[in-house]
Amino acid sequence: MEVTQVLHMNGGIGETSYANNSLVQQRVISLTKAMREEAITSLYRSTLPRSLAIADLGCSSGSNTFFVISEVIKSVEKLCRELNLESPEYQAFMNDLPGNDFNNIFMSLGSFKQKLCNEMEAGIGPCFFSGVPGSFYGRLFPSKTLHFIHSSYSLQWLSHVPEGVENNKGNIYMASTSPINVLKAYYEQFQRDFSLFLECRAEELVEGGRMVLTTLGSPGDDPSSKECCYIWELLAVALNDMVSEGIIKEEQVDSFNIPQYTPSPSELKLEVLKEGSFTINHLEISKVNWNAFDSDSSLSKSLSDGGYNVTKCMRAVAEPLLASHFGEAIIEEVFDRYQEILTDRMCKEKTEFINVSISMTRSV
Amino acid sequence: MEVTQVLHMNGGIGETSYANNSLVQQRVISLTKAMREEAITSLYRSTLPRSLAIADLGCSSGSNTFFVISEVIKSVEKLCRELNLESPEYQAFMNDLPGNDFNNIFMSLGSFKQKLCNEMEAGIGPCFFSGVPGSFYGRLFPSKTLHFIHSSYSLQWLSHVPEGVENNKGNIYMASTSPINVLKAYYEQFQRDFSLFLECRAEELVEGGRMVLTTLGSPGDDPSSKECCYIWELLAVALNDMVSEGIIKEEQVDSFNIPQYTPSPSELKLEVLKEGSFTINHLEISKVNWNAFDSDSSLSKSLSDGGYNVTKCMRAVAEPLLASHFGEAIIEEVFDRYQEILTDRMCKEKTEFINVSISMTRSV
Repeated sequence: MEVTQVLHMNGGIGETSYANNSLVQQRVISLTKAMREEAITSLYRSTLPRSLAIADLGCSSGSNTFFVISEVIKSVEKLCRELNLESPEYQAFMNDLPGNDFNNIFMSLGSFKQKLCNEMEAGIGPCFFSGVPGSFYGRLFPSKTLHFIHSSYSLQWLSHVPEGVENNKGNIYMASTSPINVLKAYYEQFQRDFSLFLECRAEELVEGGRMVLTTLGSPGDDPSSKECCYIWELLAVALNDMVSEGIIKEEQVDSFNIPQYTPSPSELKLEVLKEGSFTINHLEISKVNWNAFDSDSSLSKSLSDGGYNVTKCMRAVAEPLLASHFGEAIIEEVFDRYQEILTDRMCKEKTEFINVSISMTRSV
Repeated sequence: MEVTQVLHMNGGIGETSYANNSLVQQRVISLTKAMREEAITSLYRSTLPRSLAIADLGCSSGSNTFFVISEVIKSVEKLCRELNLESPEYQAFMNDLPGNDFNNIFMSLGSFKQKLCNEMEAGIGPCFFSGVPGSFYGRLFPSKTLHFIHSSYSLQWLSHVPEGVENNKGNIYMASTSPINVLKAYYEQFQRDFSLFLECRAEELVEGGRMVLTTLGSPGDDPSSKECCYIWELLAVALNDMVSEGIIKEEQVDSFNIPQYTPSPSELKLEVLKEGSFTINHLEISKVNWNAFDSDSSLSKSLSDGGYNVTKCMRAVAEPLLASHFGEAIIEEVFDRYQEILTDRMCKEKTEFINVSISMTRSV
């Protein structure tokens, strides 16, 4: 499977769109506000660029797309007031794979800019937006042109399903029942991908440039631990049920694997040290409930229905991958069954995603 | 009417898409090959940038989108071989209004890059592509960041329908029967828009940077001449026929005006001189048949059917404007009638678009 061609969040602004089902991702972005604030403030104070170039990698399409850019602009403007400096020009590059719904981003740019201007009464520097289609496992920008790179909940996606996982039968991801070679293949693919990512970004950042990354991660170094794999294991249960009822062929499930890896803090750190272009400023681990609405007790029953919410979130993320492999026809059925399974499990146990966030500086 | 929100070529890759109906525009781009070649060669020789930034303004979505960028890269690579220089990095910015089908451009970027690499056996410098949504009657890029700006068949579009043309009854554009205040309002809108365009580009280009523009134009200074207006006058005939049959209300046609102006060479020149940031290197006038297939005698009857071809071309360009004002329901009928009228007129007279091309240098 060519991930670059297939992987994208559900487009548009409809019921099953990512735009309408990305609250977990928003929660996660909010968790690292302080980390970004420190990075931008320190970067801006030390370099005082006339034109500040920011890139959000894996920006997707929805309310989260402009969130970080808006926050960065606000931080810099505040700093400019404090330091009595003129506002810089802002260049904001929004990157995602070519299948991302960039049209939707571009159509909402006008109202985003208007909102930002309304919020910033004292005015802001000129902002220039562009969309950059392409895989971040390759160069996206000219050398030494970016000041700040951000990416949240995208780096867990690998460039492709690792090779040599044909014997991962009955599973669609790493699982406790996966053969050891499968776990090894996934880890090695993560190492290759993430080190390439770091090499590319090291070329693109100016010296002293900053990078804040958050990825879906693992608490420890067992890649088949429950924290990493449970959400996909439950999807495998739904698919395997459909195999046993003859709706899907067994070979189809056997040959389907999710191109994802959720690294531990130490695995991330190791690659950064090996690559050698960055110094690590902060490394944080955080948790977020599978059901992003969980902490809000004021919500109506439908919104507090965890299985429903998590299914919609996972569908917005995984539908294109599943549809490309299994065909469109089974999508409704898969997610109906997944919802039942999720609802059942979520009543009985605490279900959380682990996030690993890392803040780095491009060494001089 | 908010042109920025409404104006765009028909998206997608279907029967009525711009992507499939933009041969006239391609012919026009081909006509100015020598002008671009001179501009790029002279620019590159005099500045030798390590990173060459090119912008195509009003790039639309289709085979023409990458045409100029591909040609520029080839010219520069040839020059690098001759001068025994290392290839630069290329930054290609593709601009159009936010309603343009950028998704379609981005999805075809992979195959474009592949084709370009196949054609250039000796290899090319790294290419970085981005999409820049927004009106070129405003700033699109940071100061002094572009080396070469290109725009073909976009500048005839005004930022909006001029104010004060309410008495242009029975017409949808300037026409021989338009009151004098209408002609004046259109011309003044062109002057405001084009001078703003020049101011913005002067900020964005590096000193010595080059700009090659082609616009649909007029041979002389009569803005209601046949060369400028006939194509829209025939569309007005179709609409007025529908008014007389009670299908469209008269007020609807009276309140519809095409936001376009086709300047003469001297009108263009005047604005460039007034703005003062550019020196004019070349100014050319050329003609292209309404029916882009006209010169090809080997074509089947369907392709050589001028009325059919011109209608498809005009529909790809004007459908969103018409649909936004009159509603979707009448579109088929309007273009059926337009085709009949065009077929009839094109048998009886020679029908050509006038193009004005201008090559400029950003003064130091």
